[in-house]
Amino acid sequence: MKVLEGKTITDIAGVKASGISSGIKKNGNKDLCIVYSENKAVAAAVFTTNKVKAAPLIVDMAHIRSENTQAIVVNSGNANACTGDEGLENAKQMTALTAAHLGLKPQEVLVSSTGVIGVALPMQIVEKGIKAACEALSETGGLDAATAIMTTDTRMKTITVETTVAGKPVMLSGMAKGSGMIHPNMATMLSYVITDVSIDKAVLQKVLEESVQDSYNMISVDGDTSTNDTVMVLANGAAGNATITGFGDDYLQFKEALDYVNMELAKMIIKDGEGATKLLECTVSNAAAKQDAKLLSKSVICSSLVKAAFFGNDANWGRILCAMGYSGAAFAADKVDIFFESEAGCIQLVQNGQPLNFCEETATNIMAQKLVKIKIDMKDGSAEATAWGCDLSYEYVKINGSYRS
Amino acid sequence: MKVLEGKTITDIAGVKASGISSGIKKNGNKDLCIVYSENKAVAAAVFTTNKVKAAPLIVDMAHIRSENTQAIVVNSGNANACTGDEGLENAKQMTALTAAHLGLKPQEVLVSSTGVIGVALPMQIVEKGIKAACEALSETGGLDAATAIMTTDTRMKTITVETTVAGKPVMLSGMAKGSGMIHPNMATMLSYVITDVSIDKAVLQKVLEESVQDSYNMISVDGDTSTNDTVMVLANGAAGNATITGFGDDYLQFKEALDYVNMELAKMIIKDGEGATKLLECTVSNAAAKQDAKLLSKSVICSSLVKAAFFGNDANWGRILCAMGYSGAAFAADKVDIFFESEAGCIQLVQNGQPLNFCEETATNIMAQKLVKIKIDMKDGSAEATAWGCDLSYEYVKINGSYRS
Repeated sequence: MKVLEGKTITDIAGVKASGISSGIKKNGNKDLCIVYSENKAVAAAVFTTNKVKAAPLIVDMAHIRSENTQAIVVNSGNANACTGDEGLENAKQMTALTAAHLGLKPQEVLVSSTGVIGVALPMQIVEKGIKAACEALSETGGLDAATAIMTTDTRMKTITVETTVAGKPVMLSGMAKGSGMIHPNMATMLSYVITDVSIDKAVLQKVLEESVQDSYNMISVDGDTSTNDTVMVLANGAAGNATITGFGDDYLQFKEALDYVNMELAKMIIKDGEGATKLLECTVSNAAAKQDAKLLSKSVICSSLVKAAFFGNDANWGRILCAMGYSGAAFAADKVDIFFESEAGCIQLVQNGQPLNFCEETATNIMAQKLVKIKIDMKDGSAEATAWGCDLSYEYVKINGSYRS
Repeated sequence: MKVLEGKTITDIAGVKASGISSGIKKNGNKDLCIVYSENKAVAAAVFTTNKVKAAPLIVDMAHIRSENTQAIVVNSGNANACTGDEGLENAKQMTALTAAHLGLKPQEVLVSSTGVIGVALPMQIVEKGIKAACEALSETGGLDAATAIMTTDTRMKTITVETTVAGKPVMLSGMAKGSGMIHPNMATMLSYVITDVSIDKAVLQKVLEESVQDSYNMISVDGDTSTNDTVMVLANGAAGNATITGFGDDYLQFKEALDYVNMELAKMIIKDGEGATKLLECTVSNAAAKQDAKLLSKSVICSSLVKAAFFGNDANWGRILCAMGYSGAAFAADKVDIFFESEAGCIQLVQNGQPLNFCEETATNIMAQKLVKIKIDMKDGSAEATAWGCDLSYEYVKINGSYRS
């Protein structure tokens, strides 16, 4: 598998995309995106576990049953969540309008929305926007599409890789958005992976469900699971590989690439966490069980106190042990070793649950980098898990004290 | 039951207390407190569910089995948590030293510590401090004691009430500390209730366990359950009432007063939440079940996004529905009504899960008060629960970015 720099979803054979400014966002930024596969394609998707699901997710849960999925329409600037029957009609209308322009059936189109909750979509604007976005579809529109799905994101999030399946080169390209309200559970913020692999629809759903467990489901910006979390994969078979229908080597080859794409997109979301000044990567190793390692690592990166300490470069390791203690995982606190590592070096702070006499200045230097790894050795087994988070800054509070203004 | 203004724990018959500056805190603030009952007394206690328990809790879990408990020694400025075998010895030593000065057995003394995690207690200072605190015990030392248990608290937290049990007046007086790392689970930060009631030890434990469920267990400042959470009740029988041995009217009379004391102390902790500019009170009414109402109300006050919106007086009600959605409770989103209420008035924002056209200025004025009530009507049953939280401010991040410095 190799990473292809500078490529986007429209570098996948048969895929066109567009991203335009329709006027949903008052600041004139791009806010409407369409992804279109000229070939027939199979789709898989996972959605938020939040009981309050946005209207487009309700529509997608029906449309995902279609054997063929050739387009995705996404608007940013409005989440179409908590918008009742009118919202549901509007989401359906978005798929119908897109389908009509592209000569598809409505159920062959998936739809996403992201932005403020509880405001009706301005459908006159959306209708004109979908027409313009369909007309703007091009083989170089990938960057525009990735831009048009952003809300409080400060950076575009894309990744493209190539792998080999049954002797054929296969490409996967993903784009994602997400910055706040990030605490995915079975799904994530909006993330789209387009691939030319040929794969059975049920197998694609299976591989996606496995892949989100170690990627999107292991990140958190603020502990808030969104109403709109969605990950979609579209596979159009243009690679011409022997269709993946089972769980053998081809499946594993494809899964490795999909895992990589999802993991990179998840990390990009965290790096761009609202107000974040650094990325925190917490790896719990030698745990008794995988589930314990996941609970422990995720509890650490979710702790407001740990996050604020990292913002201030304060090596307050006690908060890490405290967060492990309330994670719900069973463990022996008196076996735990804790290390901080970054490009400025590595330092051990705790041995067998006891503080070491470490140099504060060294610890502060290590913490003051853009990526800081919290390494926790449980010495209690062989299971490992990694979770990603970010620090908690003044800026997070500022952004979220006036999001709607 | 009536609230007695200006009273403290030393207004309970037979109770002396002291609070002194021993030197554990480098700034010279009071940091060592002793509470002493001249009469024999029964004690009940609940402790944190955090798997990482501070040393004094381990000692208390043994000492609470004693039929007689006549003293509590508390230091602030050092949590004696994650301090290993030495920490455990030091906690035992604190009870032994106190017992020796007061002519008690070590197991008749309970001990608490609060402050920074993972630093060994300076036992020479503590030893001199305990001697001085025992010598300083007085019938007017209640305020000093309540001051000496504070850490980042900006306000002392005390409450005293009087009720009648079996025809006798009974007094309960509580003191508490807590400001950050507040997300109690089966227990809380440090809280002590002293009463002159005569009550069976097992019954006292039962009433305490029930009482914490709707008080300390329904508050959160930052979602972090501490390693040191402890609530203790000491009952010395000085009121001379017929001993409460069962769960009849006397029990209920006493429970009403204990509930009130615990609830008030819990709210004082939240009001003093690190960086908090306002108290949030979320009441979920007409829910299908009590447990649902608790999950829903607590999820709302724990959401970083809801908390930041209240800091900015931004009526972003969608975040409230979102937090309800990931609470784990089952509910019909299309029945939910949401209101904000404060001394500036009341406004309905959501009806049947749909946004109303409300006046932003009115909503902002209502939110800009020191106590804001979030009232949620589920229209789905008759159960109700209330949770208390605070907003998330720049100051919270500032305090916790440099707690150890």
